[in-house]
Amino acid sequence: MKRTKMSPEEQAKLIEDARVFLEERVMPLEARFGAEGFAGIEADLESLRGELRERGLWAPQMPKTLGGMELSFLDHARLSRELGKSPLGHYVFGCPAPDAGNMELLLEFGSEAQQKEFLEPLARGDVRSCFSMTEPDRAGSNPAWMETTARLEDGEWVINGRKWFTTSADGAGFAIVMAVTDPDASTYARASMILVSTDAPGFIHDRLIPVMGHTGSGWASHSEIVYDNCRVPEANLLGPRGGGFLLAQSRLGPGRIHHAMRWCGIAERAFDLMCKRAVEREVAPGRPLGTRQAVQHFIAECRAKIDAAILYVEHAARSIDERGASASRTEIACVKFFVADVLSEVLDRAIQVHGALGVTDDTPLAAFYRHERAAHIYDGADEVHKTAVARWILREYGLELNAQSK
Amino acid sequence: MKRTKMSPEEQAKLIEDARVFLEERVMPLEARFGAEGFAGIEADLESLRGELRERGLWAPQMPKTLGGMELSFLDHARLSRELGKSPLGHYVFGCPAPDAGNMELLLEFGSEAQQKEFLEPLARGDVRSCFSMTEPDRAGSNPAWMETTARLEDGEWVINGRKWFTTSADGAGFAIVMAVTDPDASTYARASMILVSTDAPGFIHDRLIPVMGHTGSGWASHSEIVYDNCRVPEANLLGPRGGGFLLAQSRLGPGRIHHAMRWCGIAERAFDLMCKRAVEREVAPGRPLGTRQAVQHFIAECRAKIDAAILYVEHAARSIDERGASASRTEIACVKFFVADVLSEVLDRAIQVHGALGVTDDTPLAAFYRHERAAHIYDGADEVHKTAVARWILREYGLELNAQSK
Amino acid sequence: MKRTKMSPEEQAKLIEDARVFLEERVMPLEARFGAEGFAGIEADLESLRGELRERGLWAPQMPKTLGGMELSFLDHARLSRELGKSPLGHYVFGCPAPDAGNMELLLEFGSEAQQKEFLEPLARGDVRSCFSMTEPDRAGSNPAWMETTARLEDGEWVINGRKWFTTSADGAGFAIVMAVTDPDASTYARASMILVSTDAPGFIHDRLIPVMGHTGSGWASHSEIVYDNCRVPEANLLGPRGGGFLLAQSRLGPGRIHHAMRWCGIAERAFDLMCKRAVEREVAPGRPLGTRQAVQHFIAECRAKIDAAILYVEHAARSIDERGASASRTEIACVKFFVADVLSEVLDRAIQVHGALGVTDDTPLAAFYRHERAAHIYDGADEVHKTAVARWILREYGLELNAQSK
Amino acid sequence: MKRTKMSPEEQAKLIEDARVFLEERVMPLEARFGAEGFAGIEADLESLRGELRERGLWAPQMPKTLGGMELSFLDHARLSRELGKSPLGHYVFGCPAPDAGNMELLLEFGSEAQQKEFLEPLARGDVRSCFSMTEPDRAGSNPAWMETTARLEDGEWVINGRKWFTTSADGAGFAIVMAVTDPDASTYARASMILVSTDAPGFIHDRLIPVMGHTGSGWASHSEIVYDNCRVPEANLLGPRGGGFLLAQSRLGPGRIHHAMRWCGIAERAFDLMCKRAVEREVAPGRPLGTRQAVQHFIAECRAKIDAAILYVEHAARSIDERGASASRTEIACVKFFVADVLSEVLDRAIQVHGALGVTDDTPLAAFYRHERAAHIYDGADEVHKTAVARWILREYGLELNAQSK
Repeated sequence: MKRTKMSPEEQAKLIEDARVFLEERVMPLEARFGAEGFAGIEADLESLRGELRERGLWAPQMPKTLGGMELSFLDHARLSRELGKSPLGHYVFGCPAPDAGNMELLLEFGSEAQQKEFLEPLARGDVRSCFSMTEPDRAGSNPAWMETTARLEDGEWVINGRKWFTTSADGAGFAIVMAVTDPDASTYARASMILVSTDAPGFIHDRLIPVMGHTGSGWASHSEIVYDNCRVPEANLLGPRGGGFLLAQSRLGPGRIHHAMRWCGIAERAFDLMCKRAVEREVAPGRPLGTRQAVQHFIAECRAKIDAAILYVEHAARSIDERGASASRTEIACVKFFVADVLSEVLDRAIQVHGALGVTDDTPLAAFYRHERAAHIYDGADEVHKTAVARWILREYGLELNAQSK
Repeated sequence: MKRTKMSPEEQAKLIEDARVFLEERVMPLEARFGAEGFAGIEADLESLRGELRERGLWAPQMPKTLGGMELSFLDHARLSRELGKSPLGHYVFGCPAPDAGNMELLLEFGSEAQQKEFLEPLARGDVRSCFSMTEPDRAGSNPAWMETTARLEDGEWVINGRKWFTTSADGAGFAIVMAVTDPDASTYARASMILVSTDAPGFIHDRLIPVMGHTGSGWASHSEIVYDNCRVPEANLLGPRGGGFLLAQSRLGPGRIHHAMRWCGIAERAFDLMCKRAVEREVAPGRPLGTRQAVQHFIAECRAKIDAAILYVEHAARSIDERGASASRTEIACVKFFVADVLSEVLDRAIQVHGALGVTDDTPLAAFYRHERAAHIYDGADEVHKTAVARWILREYGLELNAQSK
Repeated sequence: MKRTKMSPEEQAKLIEDARVFLEERVMPLEARFGAEGFAGIEADLESLRGELRERGLWAPQMPKTLGGMELSFLDHARLSRELGKSPLGHYVFGCPAPDAGNMELLLEFGSEAQQKEFLEPLARGDVRSCFSMTEPDRAGSNPAWMETTARLEDGEWVINGRKWFTTSADGAGFAIVMAVTDPDASTYARASMILVSTDAPGFIHDRLIPVMGHTGSGWASHSEIVYDNCRVPEANLLGPRGGGFLLAQSRLGPGRIHHAMRWCGIAERAFDLMCKRAVEREVAPGRPLGTRQAVQHFIAECRAKIDAAILYVEHAARSIDERGASASRTEIACVKFFVADVLSEVLDRAIQVHGALGVTDDTPLAAFYRHERAAHIYDGADEVHKTAVARWILREYGLELNAQSK
Repeated sequence: MKRTKMSPEEQAKLIEDARVFLEERVMPLEARFGAEGFAGIEADLESLRGELRERGLWAPQMPKTLGGMELSFLDHARLSRELGKSPLGHYVFGCPAPDAGNMELLLEFGSEAQQKEFLEPLARGDVRSCFSMTEPDRAGSNPAWMETTARLEDGEWVINGRKWFTTSADGAGFAIVMAVTDPDASTYARASMILVSTDAPGFIHDRLIPVMGHTGSGWASHSEIVYDNCRVPEANLLGPRGGGFLLAQSRLGPGRIHHAMRWCGIAERAFDLMCKRAVEREVAPGRPLGTRQAVQHFIAECRAKIDAAILYVEHAARSIDERGASASRTEIACVKFFVADVLSEVLDRAIQVHGALGVTDDTPLAAFYRHERAAHIYDGADEVHKTAVARWILREYGLELNAQSK
């Protein structure tokens, strides 16, 4: 698929449309999202999604044939930054994790039948999906080391294992599961990806994992899943047999940039709230917080870091557009940990400027603070990315380090 | 009251008793505390409190005549570090905020009648209390600027105003309220403290403030309180009329050290969890996380910072014992922001070493992370303390800065 | 002057030419520069300068009519990053501070006669110049507060005062001096800029200021200058009378980006040295430093920060090209402190990876470390820029802060 | 040797005597030390040393029988902090590195004859000494890996090799050299220490290593030494044959605390200069730097960190007094990197508050900044200590890591 870059005017209009819709229609739901969870506002969200789908503001990264906007990576990055300002932004515009990554996998590796059965309803927003890779007893940073197995039996995959932190499994229509299909193959060729309908026999939703104080619900939740002789048709193998690790790399690579785009949006929202607070809150009559140099320096330092983060994300997005994700892996990995750091710092300082209000749920800051601590962890811990970056760089200097070298 | 310092042996025994009780009896309740809130385990806690009260492991900072242990500040610091390892530690040992600070106020400034009516049941643990100072529209860092008023009318104080972030008000027996009684007095002589029974007419519990995702309950909650022509007897004035600011200083000063003591305990707990995780979690077969230098350096840096924090807290505690809180104000303020920084860093790194598990509620780390973000805010934002410290230091160099100078 | 942006191919060739020249001809002089100072290698440098002037690799920011390359700001930024890899790079390519800024001032504000007398020989490299603004007893961050005066007398300016940190005054042909000409004017209209030949009567080179252990010499030195009834023709007034402050702003704005460009070059050099060291230095037989995760993370973090710094500098340069320096002031100020931080961190870590070798003068790192500590100070301390940035941002939120507000 | 702890009064008097002597007699020499080097003021220093020796303010860590003060580690720590305020402090009081460490080695391991020949004149200050361990091609962090050899031949050690960074070799009377005497022994039993007079045949002072811009001279210099069939009597073996590694550990352990003590003194000096500057330097008429919140926060943060550093050093010193250096190794290693960080931060901020003056040699800050960058490197890079600390801690959690594990 050849994605055309938007003209600056088209892009500006898109961003503005998104901004208006978010501020007028989506952000007003945030307080209820916090109080009632996803389940409490699901109906409202579906109605907004329908509206956006009709306006063509839908699934920005999907091809037009699937109802999407077919944006380039860079254009998507810019839109995504806008959407990220609300925790609901990506969901209502049809590009939330983990659906977005799953759509990309299905688009690139799905058979025609798979695309018809799984991708089309997903791209339309008729079902939700989840991605079942991490296991409770195996470090997520080592995807070559996995206990869940799938064996072929009578034309079906029989899957056994326990998966952890399967985001959005609650209420999802299907999961993409990673399982060892070829235990005797070489390290990176053991696992495969398999499409599993959540009503397949043996798919057991074991529990919602309480995260940062909440079990959540629906799209905004994380589950532990047991596969107990779970059976699905042989044709549900996604991509080549033994290709699980490769598909995971392919899914996670750009996925990290998707997150970083979103984080920039969160950081902008927090920055905006911080500035408003600095202007409105008086520490003495006629003396707003913004007169304090400590607050001023928070603002300046955050502005500089957010700018740098945005430029870095766009640079990586442009690189993916022009050179592909694989050639951009150093940039992608660097962006991942660099922007996660910026996000954490900006959120922390925005909360500080809000004082006690900052830790209440009367602003979205506290929820961002809780949920985005995981930015340093999901899709590969920062430390793992740093080690990988160094390995790639030092290779150019003639030092070959294997993946397990410390 | 002359407090005797314990011998090293007495102290070691006390710490050990506390450690065992916490590990065996209190920590097992933590998971339910997270899931059910304070209300869900209140009965269990009361039973533990009764047991400790009988064993004389109760109210370490209170005089023996009130059933306490009469510990010196330094001995209390050491015990408090142990208690801090559980979020329930101080509560079950009879010295939780805000009760602890309120007891100290009543002990120092309460009339005989006030001590009988308010202090004795509080010290026994028969009632809980709250402290009502911060207001929603006034910066907490400027306690001289306040809207709540109290006027004398027919031998009663008539209180009007709105107080915010009144911790533990839900279910409390009484509040200590700060209100302007003398609007025409000089800045720091306008307000007074008044004891208000929560069943006084006009005491309105307006709402539980949702904090970091939860409204909480009972002792573990924060409320917004409205005083709507709330009437209490004239004799409920605590300390001298116009002395509210002074009493607040007196209450908050050592209170900051109480918090810092507790933070050291939290940091030790997090450190212990981090080390255990480093040993147990394998990133590859036979290769635990602790073999990674990044994890090793987290551990070493945290150890050094926790040690320094503990030494600093004990230094300030010793200074309070020997020179009084007022002469120790620079140390107290420095300890406040220094230890808050250490706590945040240690929690952050302990979570990182736990990976996704660190953001779940399967360990206490996520709850500590959420709730102790406020360590940088309550009892005076870090920035306010830093400015005060500089003012005191620069005064010795001949530069007089008034409190509002930036 | 309309500056044409280079094609990517032209630019790549220019960078490559510069790289080769620097590595083959300039870097070999660095060790002698360290040991003998500027005076010791001045003749060699002049010969290199002549060669580059002939090849047209000269004065990248000057118009072609003056022998320069007429590069856009962005193209200059990219070249400058290459030149910055050697402390001698900008000097040999005809664009060192303070000459570069002085040329820009003369180009924009100089009369025809002034350009003939001062700019042309400067642009050719026949003379060097200096800029005399900061005073020993006045904070450099407050250029409206200055003691040096100039009064008109018999068609001559008579200048009196003492200037500090006048970089490159030793051996310079002329100075641009900032002095109060109109003491009764409004704050920002008191001072003017005046061109002063260093052999004018009353121009007294008082001392070379020892900086970081060295007094230096020639271009690589800083002087204290006394103006003792120093007399120059009335026509030496540069720009409008009372326009000194405005000219200073105009000179310093883009000047900060010039520095930041150069810092990126230094950071790249340090990064390269760090990586080489990580590959070459063994901590045990067959185990180079690069196998250590701590070193790997230094490398990854530095790579990310340098990338972000480069993108930010280029973004600001592009903004200056497209919108002018004044409209880009927030970006310029942010870039200044952001890149200074990156530079300090990269240098620090590169030294650390070198161990004891890093603090010796056997690599250029120690000299960079010493001299670029000032990056946080010259052209406005970081704190001053942060305060300014916050002021501009908060103005958009409706808060007007005057320059002196803290 | 049983060292008696001083009474608080004795200690206060000692500190005060040292303070006065330093301020009145030693600090006035600092400017000349900077401009002329050690050689330029050596005569003045010798005269001061003689005076202090006569007053009994000499060699605080040496036994009284050798003319020292026989201070406990803790008392020495407190004195050392005072001495550290001047870069000349330890030298004039008879306890500079590397002499101090060498005296301790000779005191503990020297034979009677060795003590007579080497220790007595060293303790009296009649000669200086150096310590020759690090090699140019071998990582200092791996002292088990060394190329210099010593073989016994005709009752003499014949030493061959090249040593790097031999501090104070210029003008020293003797060196303690570490060389491989038993190449076939187990890793940590190969090397021995040998006393080598600098006029021994084959002791070649190859060059002064330029460090941070200076080659230095005498005590204040670092040399590269070649041992070219250098011959010394067999009796010059210090301690047991093969005991070199053990002696080095024994020398470096407490040596790290000696450095940390001194760093606290430097930090106090920088803090004092920063505060004075904050009071004296006006940024506008009547508005000293200390009115700026950014400066205030620098001051407060530095105060807290210096306090914590001092407490930590004293804690480790007390631990050495009470439990010995070996049992205190975790504390010693933590103190090393913790205090080095504090020192770097305090120096950096003190310079920043001084603006351009801070990078000149008009204050001692720039020299401290240059020379103490090595605090993170000498006596073991910070990273090496962090790894060691983690290893010791994780061992208590049941994880055994060998020294080379990363």
